[in-house]
Amino acid sequence: MYGDMNYRACFIGLGTMGFPMAMNLIKSGVHLTVYNRTKEKADKLEGAEKLENLSEAFVKSDVVLSMLSDDESLRQVSNEILKVDRKERGIHVSFSTVSPELAKELTEKHKEKGIHFIAAPVFGRPDDVRDKLLWIVQAGHLEAKKEVAPLLEFLSQKVYDFGEFPEAAAAVNLAGNFLILSVIESLAEAFAFSLKNKIDLRSFEAFLTESIFPSPIYKTYGNMIINQNFEPAGFKMELGMKDINLIMNSAEKHKIPLPLAALLHSRILSSLANGRDEMDCSAIALTVFEEAGLK
Amino acid sequence: MYGDMNYRACFIGLGTMGFPMAMNLIKSGVHLTVYNRTKEKADKLEGAEKLENLSEAFVKSDVVLSMLSDDESLRQVSNEILKVDRKERGIHVSFSTVSPELAKELTEKHKEKGIHFIAAPVFGRPDDVRDKLLWIVQAGHLEAKKEVAPLLEFLSQKVYDFGEFPEAAAAVNLAGNFLILSVIESLAEAFAFSLKNKIDLRSFEAFLTESIFPSPIYKTYGNMIINQNFEPAGFKMELGMKDINLIMNSAEKHKIPLPLAALLHSRILSSLANGRDEMDCSAIALTVFEEAGLK
Amino acid sequence: MYGDMNYRACFIGLGTMGFPMAMNLIKSGVHLTVYNRTKEKADKLEGAEKLENLSEAFVKSDVVLSMLSDDESLRQVSNEILKVDRKERGIHVSFSTVSPELAKELTEKHKEKGIHFIAAPVFGRPDDVRDKLLWIVQAGHLEAKKEVAPLLEFLSQKVYDFGEFPEAAAAVNLAGNFLILSVIESLAEAFAFSLKNKIDLRSFEAFLTESIFPSPIYKTYGNMIINQNFEPAGFKMELGMKDINLIMNSAEKHKIPLPLAALLHSRILSSLANGRDEMDCSAIALTVFEEAGLK
Amino acid sequence: MYGDMNYRACFIGLGTMGFPMAMNLIKSGVHLTVYNRTKEKADKLEGAEKLENLSEAFVKSDVVLSMLSDDESLRQVSNEILKVDRKERGIHVSFSTVSPELAKELTEKHKEKGIHFIAAPVFGRPDDVRDKLLWIVQAGHLEAKKEVAPLLEFLSQKVYDFGEFPEAAAAVNLAGNFLILSVIESLAEAFAFSLKNKIDLRSFEAFLTESIFPSPIYKTYGNMIINQNFEPAGFKMELGMKDINLIMNSAEKHKIPLPLAALLHSRILSSLANGRDEMDCSAIALTVFEEAGLK
Repeated sequence: MYGDMNYRACFIGLGTMGFPMAMNLIKSGVHLTVYNRTKEKADKLEGAEKLENLSEAFVKSDVVLSMLSDDESLRQVSNEILKVDRKERGIHVSFSTVSPELAKELTEKHKEKGIHFIAAPVFGRPDDVRDKLLWIVQAGHLEAKKEVAPLLEFLSQKVYDFGEFPEAAAAVNLAGNFLILSVIESLAEAFAFSLKNKIDLRSFEAFLTESIFPSPIYKTYGNMIINQNFEPAGFKMELGMKDINLIMNSAEKHKIPLPLAALLHSRILSSLANGRDEMDCSAIALTVFEEAGLK
Repeated sequence: MYGDMNYRACFIGLGTMGFPMAMNLIKSGVHLTVYNRTKEKADKLEGAEKLENLSEAFVKSDVVLSMLSDDESLRQVSNEILKVDRKERGIHVSFSTVSPELAKELTEKHKEKGIHFIAAPVFGRPDDVRDKLLWIVQAGHLEAKKEVAPLLEFLSQKVYDFGEFPEAAAAVNLAGNFLILSVIESLAEAFAFSLKNKIDLRSFEAFLTESIFPSPIYKTYGNMIINQNFEPAGFKMELGMKDINLIMNSAEKHKIPLPLAALLHSRILSSLANGRDEMDCSAIALTVFEEAGLK
Repeated sequence: MYGDMNYRACFIGLGTMGFPMAMNLIKSGVHLTVYNRTKEKADKLEGAEKLENLSEAFVKSDVVLSMLSDDESLRQVSNEILKVDRKERGIHVSFSTVSPELAKELTEKHKEKGIHFIAAPVFGRPDDVRDKLLWIVQAGHLEAKKEVAPLLEFLSQKVYDFGEFPEAAAAVNLAGNFLILSVIESLAEAFAFSLKNKIDLRSFEAFLTESIFPSPIYKTYGNMIINQNFEPAGFKMELGMKDINLIMNSAEKHKIPLPLAALLHSRILSSLANGRDEMDCSAIALTVFEEAGLK
Repeated sequence: MYGDMNYRACFIGLGTMGFPMAMNLIKSGVHLTVYNRTKEKADKLEGAEKLENLSEAFVKSDVVLSMLSDDESLRQVSNEILKVDRKERGIHVSFSTVSPELAKELTEKHKEKGIHFIAAPVFGRPDDVRDKLLWIVQAGHLEAKKEVAPLLEFLSQKVYDFGEFPEAAAAVNLAGNFLILSVIESLAEAFAFSLKNKIDLRSFEAFLTESIFPSPIYKTYGNMIINQNFEPAGFKMELGMKDINLIMNSAEKHKIPLPLAALLHSRILSSLANGRDEMDCSAIALTVFEEAGLK
């Protein structure tokens, strides 16, 4: 179907991540139709055709890409785009962070319409999109993944494959985000300890990220905490709450106690209770510091 | 004093870490006198003179290096080696993981004898010593650090400096070990979640360590948990207990609640209660798995 | 309306608690119509008329009493019984443990039909019903509460009032159940400590319940743990899971971190993961003991 | 020895608890010699002879009673009073909250001098002493306990026996105090939940203490939290810290993870970090409320 690379693709959801992702595709020469709930967002995207009605997504294109905020939005959008009678095979690539349970459910619903659902959640912050530094974890039908491979390459530095069941990629996404939030908590506690021991935090961060933790996560969040620079947020507190709830709910279905996730849940909840909704998740460090009388 | 690099150095404590460290110094051309409580260990080290009596350490050498198991041992050894009347300045470089409080106390006690105490705890596992892959964090008297700099270079890939107060390096050591143990807990929870979601753990580990966590800690402990390969231990359960107690006790003196450290404390204690003393700290993953009914 | 005490009442939900409650009402002279999803349960109840169709509940009676297992069931039943056009005022007394949010929602829905919704959840185990040892916490419309007061008296040793908003009684119910589960965790930890210190647990329990904790909760659960007598369950593990989820979800809406509730959540989840579904909630003590190597 | 009830007793430690206890003994007709580190305290106690030198305690009396603040004080006092050569048998009744390990150690040390060490820690707050409402848990040598039984009766409403090993009574004391602190945490979380659900806390407390928790602990601490009346403290924050450390340290020796105790440890530490040293332990509720944004 896409042998000649003349993609007719449609991108749904032009938020903080979706907008620059769509832009990258356009720049890469993809003929893109776009849709956003608030139309103004779509108007700002030059070089793209506008989609008026979600139910026409699979009429106008063979590949639908979506980047939405939560399970609810992805379910609604999927319901709309599946109101279609296709003759040819279609593919829906979902970049959103959603529950493995929804990924599984949507795979079935798409199948009934002859459409492949590929889960392809991304790791990276808005800044990373522009520089094509995203990492994508994908899972879904083998042939379908091959067909959209060039599109994912336009968007990321590397794609990791987790087999044919979309729920696996969704689960990797949640587990990865949990690991990121865990780093924040552990750094916050280590920094509180370091501060009271009069260690220079910048030297400590430099040591960590040059030696045992040469990881962008430790660098990015370490610096945000040290500089108390929590706005604008790359990973907003409410998104952190959403993610921690997704993993805890899924873990509960599988009967897996996750005490560290529970600790993170309490931290984020406390941050929201104290009006830190607009801050980055790394602002849970403020609670850690306050509990230690460091204000 | 060491301008000509003709070091007369003494190494005390030839355990799992100390033995290969002493060997590296000998290979690097340092004239080394060694001491170990159980004499057989010292006999195995070719090319070193044996010290019979700890109180002669600073008689026979200007620089004493020590790698001991805990606060108690370092305090005892320090008491012995300080039973000396020096005319020249001496330096005690302590590689051990000990409390910041002890580091501070020993700094004073050494000063009274005109000796500089440098805290220079190391990060790395026994395997890393041979390959000079250790990282050292040091703190202490500026001139003294310059004088022993070549010795530390013989032992490590890089030395990070944390100023003139030895307790700062001791605190960085504890904070770093806490961060390592935190990674183990977070990986164990993420892996339990992944297992029940039928994710291939090897692919997950490969993704993590190539993308967001390109860190030797994630690689080493990730693989140990995946392979359930906990013996022989590089970071033995009892050492983990010791370290978590050191940081929690020090944090208590500074009034810093560390709930993640408290979780690690419970995990390690449970591992010891269930006979996992000989295993690596990463075996706390077994408790995480058992709680999820994964056996 | 009920001045002459000739109640025409309907009881829906004849489970472990509902069955003996309905029986008590019949014995007290209430003319009772009953309904249960599985009809056999209703047949066993002598002296009661059977209701064939839920939508006739408010046709045949003025007061509907319900004791159902969860939010879902109560919502469904409410939808059915509200399919009615009443001319006179009716009252629905809900004994179930449900979310404050549902209580609020149902209050509105009932109001639209001119029916008062009273939340009247109960504290007590099945054994307590027979002996009329239940405690009821109620909230709802003042006049309606007066009208059903005699019915609640037939069922309990005392009724506590929490005002006019049904969600308040629902919240008191959840907070109370959380306190009960907290007692179980605290006793389990105290007993593990006592066991390893060779204290006779029976003497310890006797001391506690005669002195600082003369409470039926400490006595009942203390003895269950000491005797490891977890079946048949009075407060089944799955109900505990339901309750802890109800309070945590409601707390999340109000942005209240509850770390002790989170600990209980992990304990119960681990019990379910290890096949203890049929046991009483107090069997979380088994996890506490296992973690301490006490088996 | 005490058949005629003409006790020659000595009371050491006239603090908040010890002073009124000594007074009760005097009122009950006991011929009492008293000692306090700060002499003024002893002068205020009418009707008692003053002891100048601790080493004369067992010269002037056959029974020494002590109420001291911690392990360190009791160890020091014991060392002093054991500097004696007795011909007759003596008894030391220790009311202090100390570690089971110290109780065991002191039992041996007293035995060497032919003296029986009885651990008899008390439950109750300063107010309870005056009204003889204390509960005492005792353990030690059978005959010795019989001999001092009348003295303990003068001081308490009931004495509970835990056998011949003093460490058992010490452990019961710690386990009991842990249970009390657990109640505070659970009430604080339940109250935060109730507040945000607009439940009247006074009605809630009345319900709890009349029905499922008719316990002085729930009443006392429930009211303190509701009235935010944390000073003067009956159970001072620092004593709570001491107690939670005693049980956690003893639990660690026995390899018992106590996650609820760990949570309490964090709460108390945070209270101390935020300057609440003079408040009652129930002020940990303030942290619970602050985390929920209730200020």
